[in-house]
Amino acid sequence: MRKEIGASPGSLVYTGDYEHDVFGKLFTYDADHLSETEFTEKLPPLSRESGHNSWLLVQGVHDLDIVKSIGQTFGLHRLVLEDMVNPVQRMKVEDYEGVLFLVLKMVEWRDEGEWESRQFNMLMADKWTVLVTESETDFFEPIVKRLKKDGGVIRKSGADYMGYAIIDLLVDHYMHIVNDVGDRVEDIDAERLDEGNTLADLKSLQHYLTHLKRYVRQLKELLQTLLKDDMILVHAETKIYLRDVYDHALQCADQVESLQDSLNSALNHYHSHMGLKLNEIMKFLTMMGSIFIPLTFVAGIYGMNFQHMPELAWKWGYPAVVGAMVLITVGLVIYFKIRKWF
Amino acid sequence: MRKEIGASPGSLVYTGDYEHDVFGKLFTYDADHLSETEFTEKLPPLSRESGHNSWLLVQGVHDLDIVKSIGQTFGLHRLVLEDMVNPVQRMKVEDYEGVLFLVLKMVEWRDEGEWESRQFNMLMADKWTVLVTESETDFFEPIVKRLKKDGGVIRKSGADYMGYAIIDLLVDHYMHIVNDVGDRVEDIDAERLDEGNTLADLKSLQHYLTHLKRYVRQLKELLQTLLKDDMILVHAETKIYLRDVYDHALQCADQVESLQDSLNSALNHYHSHMGLKLNEIMKFLTMMGSIFIPLTFVAGIYGMNFQHMPELAWKWGYPAVVGAMVLITVGLVIYFKIRKWF
Amino acid sequence: MRKEIGASPGSLVYTGDYEHDVFGKLFTYDADHLSETEFTEKLPPLSRESGHNSWLLVQGVHDLDIVKSIGQTFGLHRLVLEDMVNPVQRMKVEDYEGVLFLVLKMVEWRDEGEWESRQFNMLMADKWTVLVTESETDFFEPIVKRLKKDGGVIRKSGADYMGYAIIDLLVDHYMHIVNDVGDRVEDIDAERLDEGNTLADLKSLQHYLTHLKRYVRQLKELLQTLLKDDMILVHAETKIYLRDVYDHALQCADQVESLQDSLNSALNHYHSHMGLKLNEIMKFLTMMGSIFIPLTFVAGIYGMNFQHMPELAWKWGYPAVVGAMVLITVGLVIYFKIRKWF
Amino acid sequence: MRKEIGASPGSLVYTGDYEHDVFGKLFTYDADHLSETEFTEKLPPLSRESGHNSWLLVQGVHDLDIVKSIGQTFGLHRLVLEDMVNPVQRMKVEDYEGVLFLVLKMVEWRDEGEWESRQFNMLMADKWTVLVTESETDFFEPIVKRLKKDGGVIRKSGADYMGYAIIDLLVDHYMHIVNDVGDRVEDIDAERLDEGNTLADLKSLQHYLTHLKRYVRQLKELLQTLLKDDMILVHAETKIYLRDVYDHALQCADQVESLQDSLNSALNHYHSHMGLKLNEIMKFLTMMGSIFIPLTFVAGIYGMNFQHMPELAWKWGYPAVVGAMVLITVGLVIYFKIRKWF
Amino acid sequence: MRKEIGASPGSLVYTGDYEHDVFGKLFTYDADHLSETEFTEKLPPLSRESGHNSWLLVQGVHDLDIVKSIGQTFGLHRLVLEDMVNPVQRMKVEDYEGVLFLVLKMVEWRDEGEWESRQFNMLMADKWTVLVTESETDFFEPIVKRLKKDGGVIRKSGADYMGYAIIDLLVDHYMHIVNDVGDRVEDIDAERLDEGNTLADLKSLQHYLTHLKRYVRQLKELLQTLLKDDMILVHAETKIYLRDVYDHALQCADQVESLQDSLNSALNHYHSHMGLKLNEIMKFLTMMGSIFIPLTFVAGIYGMNFQHMPELAWKWGYPAVVGAMVLITVGLVIYFKIRKWF
Repeated sequence: MRKEIGASPGSLVYTGDYEHDVFGKLFTYDADHLSETEFTEKLPPLSRESGHNSWLLVQGVHDLDIVKSIGQTFGLHRLVLEDMVNPVQRMKVEDYEGVLFLVLKMVEWRDEGEWESRQFNMLMADKWTVLVTESETDFFEPIVKRLKKDGGVIRKSGADYMGYAIIDLLVDHYMHIVNDVGDRVEDIDAERLDEGNTLADLKSLQHYLTHLKRYVRQLKELLQTLLKDDMILVHAETKIYLRDVYDHALQCADQVESLQDSLNSALNHYHSHMGLKLNEIMKFLTMMGSIFIPLTFVAGIYGMNFQHMPELAWKWGYPAVVGAMVLITVGLVIYFKIRKWF
Repeated sequence: MRKEIGASPGSLVYTGDYEHDVFGKLFTYDADHLSETEFTEKLPPLSRESGHNSWLLVQGVHDLDIVKSIGQTFGLHRLVLEDMVNPVQRMKVEDYEGVLFLVLKMVEWRDEGEWESRQFNMLMADKWTVLVTESETDFFEPIVKRLKKDGGVIRKSGADYMGYAIIDLLVDHYMHIVNDVGDRVEDIDAERLDEGNTLADLKSLQHYLTHLKRYVRQLKELLQTLLKDDMILVHAETKIYLRDVYDHALQCADQVESLQDSLNSALNHYHSHMGLKLNEIMKFLTMMGSIFIPLTFVAGIYGMNFQHMPELAWKWGYPAVVGAMVLITVGLVIYFKIRKWF
Repeated sequence: MRKEIGASPGSLVYTGDYEHDVFGKLFTYDADHLSETEFTEKLPPLSRESGHNSWLLVQGVHDLDIVKSIGQTFGLHRLVLEDMVNPVQRMKVEDYEGVLFLVLKMVEWRDEGEWESRQFNMLMADKWTVLVTESETDFFEPIVKRLKKDGGVIRKSGADYMGYAIIDLLVDHYMHIVNDVGDRVEDIDAERLDEGNTLADLKSLQHYLTHLKRYVRQLKELLQTLLKDDMILVHAETKIYLRDVYDHALQCADQVESLQDSLNSALNHYHSHMGLKLNEIMKFLTMMGSIFIPLTFVAGIYGMNFQHMPELAWKWGYPAVVGAMVLITVGLVIYFKIRKWF
Repeated sequence: MRKEIGASPGSLVYTGDYEHDVFGKLFTYDADHLSETEFTEKLPPLSRESGHNSWLLVQGVHDLDIVKSIGQTFGLHRLVLEDMVNPVQRMKVEDYEGVLFLVLKMVEWRDEGEWESRQFNMLMADKWTVLVTESETDFFEPIVKRLKKDGGVIRKSGADYMGYAIIDLLVDHYMHIVNDVGDRVEDIDAERLDEGNTLADLKSLQHYLTHLKRYVRQLKELLQTLLKDDMILVHAETKIYLRDVYDHALQCADQVESLQDSLNSALNHYHSHMGLKLNEIMKFLTMMGSIFIPLTFVAGIYGMNFQHMPELAWKWGYPAVVGAMVLITVGLVIYFKIRKWF
Repeated sequence: MRKEIGASPGSLVYTGDYEHDVFGKLFTYDADHLSETEFTEKLPPLSRESGHNSWLLVQGVHDLDIVKSIGQTFGLHRLVLEDMVNPVQRMKVEDYEGVLFLVLKMVEWRDEGEWESRQFNMLMADKWTVLVTESETDFFEPIVKRLKKDGGVIRKSGADYMGYAIIDLLVDHYMHIVNDVGDRVEDIDAERLDEGNTLADLKSLQHYLTHLKRYVRQLKELLQTLLKDDMILVHAETKIYLRDVYDHALQCADQVESLQDSLNSALNHYHSHMGLKLNEIMKFLTMMGSIFIPLTFVAGIYGMNFQHMPELAWKWGYPAVVGAMVLITVGLVIYFKIRKWF
């Protein structure tokens, strides 16, 4: 469903196509305690002022009531809410005094070697992290596990570290896909691209890399914004971690670039291989044609039915013509060799 | 009609080709009231100092008297007036103390799947928004509707918000066209481009995207200027909205770029598909030629009319030659298979 | 004549090839008065301190005495004089306390649809504008006319406005040429480029656009320098006009770029059109060859003169062979249709 | 072994494939003394506060205990340790108050004309230089030798000079490889690329250069960071040396670029050479075909067996036809010459 | 001879291949006096503190003693000396308090239309200019001449002006070569590139331009450094001259770029010309083939020896078949015309 042209800003219209049941979890945690609440349909009562760190994970961005009540709790600008329900956006971070609003894109491999990207929203306030996603996903399980198991950093830190952990997870996924694409690129044998469907595979890999490149570039911009000195919601210690993620993103971008080079050179190789092969075939035809066309002509001469053709009656006429044909053939072959055509 | 070379600056010559009757509307509004006045031929009396917000919508940039009287009312530099009547310009914003002058370009789909861009001028003073367009257009209807219906933001805000609403409408239209182009790009089947007129379609889509890219780039520059800190005519609150439009423009630029990639890869696919097809045909000819040329030569040999050709009288001559032909054919086919030419 | 390598800087050697008689005009003007003096061979006596605005127009940069006496009057650095007599330079502006030195390039259409660029020098001091050109030209007539007619701005303003008027004239000419090139680009029919000399025309248009692009780029740099805040010789009011010229230059650059796109896509269209046409012809040959080569072979078989060929004596031999030929033809045509080669 | 997605940051997992025995050396030195300690399996006891300069060289980044105890000694952030055990990274330098952490890549030729890049880590503290490498390597021998022999600068200077010496060694190796690639590029004979495996060689050289370019670019960034004014761990005197290395890197980049140009132009030359050769062959076939096809047709005419063909009985029929064939041949050859096809 | 990998910095190893005898000149000059001393093998005694301006010109960079004693006289860093004896470097300027060290590249035409670039070093101290070159060269003669003849600027000015004069000479040479290349580019006739060795010429011109572009770019960087405000060794007056050289360099870069455009378009023209010519030839073959192949088939039919072919006995058989052949020919020609293939 597309939004009406000229609709007033902040009008909430969900333009995606997922309509799962609303489902969510609320984690409240500090270094010592961890509580987990599951909910469906409605948000549990939230208070921004609770002393603990809270992580709210909501699946169901299509439910405008949910979105509105999140908006109310965190005092969000209506443009933020509008952005939340629009599933086709660039990754970005916006700083609304006290709340960071991030739009992010996760990517996941599907079974058939295809992957899918899916947008989600993140709010970071001092002690609150809110994730609002479109569809059911177990993408965040590794963080839930770390939250449960770890006596460690994630439990002791605030929303900025949680945000870092999520972006880090994202980049891990990107890197994973880049590595998988890399494995498939290595398997490509440029000289056999025309057999089976490998040429189509290669084009789809190229397509993936173009998308990944765009995502990584957007993520780099996003991280640069988060790393700025005036981004006070992110503590100095967390910035060290974010810088590490930024390094991974750079590395990812490097690898994507290098894979694109490989794919392009495989394609070039394939094309020049095809060209050389056609050349070879054409040269064979040329040789056959150039040799047999004059020979056939000679045979045609003596196939004419003129009554007065003295050679026809000559006893040695036939051997002489065959001899001439052999000479022509040898001459042409020598000529070709001299011109280095074969 | 082209302007004379070396004409003195500020000389008003309308160089477009629209000469509709002048028609216009004047809206005066605040949070509580809204009055609407229609006029033709002449402007109604305007006063910059009226307490209400005013929105003047004039269709008829070719009428130099109208343009001059707008110039007088708002104390515009004569270069501004010269720009207003020149319908071939880049989008831009110029800041003349107290008045912002904007040149903008709307785009509209025509019925036959073509679109048309049309330039219009916007003046933004504290409480005044003036739109001067070339031709009759119902482009601004959604805003008129919001003005009439809304008990909301647009009525309570000044010219800067009205300006935002208009630019937002513009970007909505751009986005709409990008989406439509996107739908048509998805329908393209690269292997059938030569059938019907789809190749021409694709080229016209490419043409559209090139133009859209230019427009979006100009709009981004324009918005960057409006978002600068020293642009005091635009209030901080409105800048939040403009930043949202800027985001949409970035997104639009992203999508245009990605559509261009798709089109290019479709074209490349088409070309390599055509090349492979030609290769295939050439290879078939080569096979036919390479096999039948020597066979025909052999037949030609025994079509010669020499009186002394012992083979002709030999009883098994005919079967022997046919056998030899079969051998030659099989030999060549095997040779081709070994060279992997088929 | 080329300058000697390693000549000491400031050595005056005219390296162009124009040697017309020296001719010039001196205009002295203010809001109320205008006097015009023509001169040949020698400059009239000049005084920098006269109260009026003066515009000196000298045709004859090859006359080193003229150049030197201008140098003396305005106290010019010897490198400036060296630059003045070198007709192959980039456009530029140099600020020598109290005097601006500009190198500019005018372009003019010749009758045969060719155009020519020609460099000239401009000096701008407080009340003095000096133009030194290589050849006789009526390029500046529109300004002379405005100076004579106008009770207006040009008479009331100083050298900076005169400078603006000249650069504006320049850009008007650029724009005029861009428009003319645009008209000729629109006339191009990509599918008929090979007929007549249109391909050559297209290449010369491309050549022109490359040059124009370079000129416009240089002019943009020049204007940026003139628009800087520390360029005190140019008054704030004149800068508004120059900004307008700068806008025109941007527009010009945009149009040149867009024309280059059009030319390139016309060329691409032409090349792919030629390729498709050749493909079509090759396919026709292939069809003819693939069908007739085996048929001719069959005919060749029965043209052999073996005494023992039972088919020859068979009553239905001839119709059977013709029937076989028809079958072969039909078979091949069906095969081609299945492979979608035609 | 790949790292688990979403692992908590700082988790130490070695993802490379080298598992040699741990081996290392510790050099303690000042201007007068030099002591060398070899160790295996475990680090010798280290103290950051010893008065001498120390250089620790550890082979065995896969041994996490070693890495951890280095981390403890120098108080390294756990992200640094994570980076140390990840052998696929970009070159970089990170400044952790008092300790610089560098990731570098050495390159070494293997015997078969292949080369291999290998990452290593460097820590630079005031008096400590620590190198942690993946595999056994004698890459650093030249520095060991200078340390032993030299009564010179390296013994008198601190860790920053040692760091410089190592980066210098790196760039020397890069330069060496660039020179070797250069020698091999010069040996390439563009017209014989298709013989033997030289085309494949050329493609591998291209591949190498792409990688070298990336390395040099990363190294330039790294050196720019080291040369910044606020990089206080590097003394002003050492910065002079580093600027020298930076110059070498620029030079290296220049040469890589110029070699890429040469390779590209060799490839282009090869392709146009192949194209010209095919053209030549095709033209030969065309000539043969165009001449003999009509001649064969003429011979075919008089090979027909009609009973009523008056020419066949004519005495001069045969010489007339042969004469006509000669005329046709001459006519076609003249036509070809006029069209300049040969 | 290549330098050892990992050699300690500042080790003096001459890596070029010139080993001429050492030869040099020392000029001492001021506005009134000029003395010239020639020397071989050893430097004359030099004193940095002599009151006069001195210009030392040494040919023989391979003589390490000479290099060392220059180093001692001017107190040069050992890295400078290392750079001096390395003949493969980028152009650069380095500022060592009180001494500027420049690496420059001169270019000279050789007789056979080839050119050669050669590196030399320049030291600029307050009153000293030192040039150290690899080989015997009369490159600097024009400056010697100006020094001897001129009662002018060069005698009155210090080392910075001398440095300017040398760089100016360099750029003059570049410009000279660019002009010569330009002349040769103009002589190229794109349609005849395949005749004689012009295609090879064109490729060597391209090669030259690539190198010149690199040199000019490096020189521009070098001049930008010299023109900086904090470059106090260069006086303000000299900077005006250097800015002039910088303009020349820009101009040179512009011309190189424009020549590259011309060469590329000549190459493109050549390739499309070759393609069109091949097309034309192929089309001729196609026409011949398409017309004569079916005709020959018809002739073949009636060349068959069946006993029962009624047409053979028919009186009008022969004329009918010839008539049919004419019809086929006319039909095909009309078909070709309709398809616009000829």
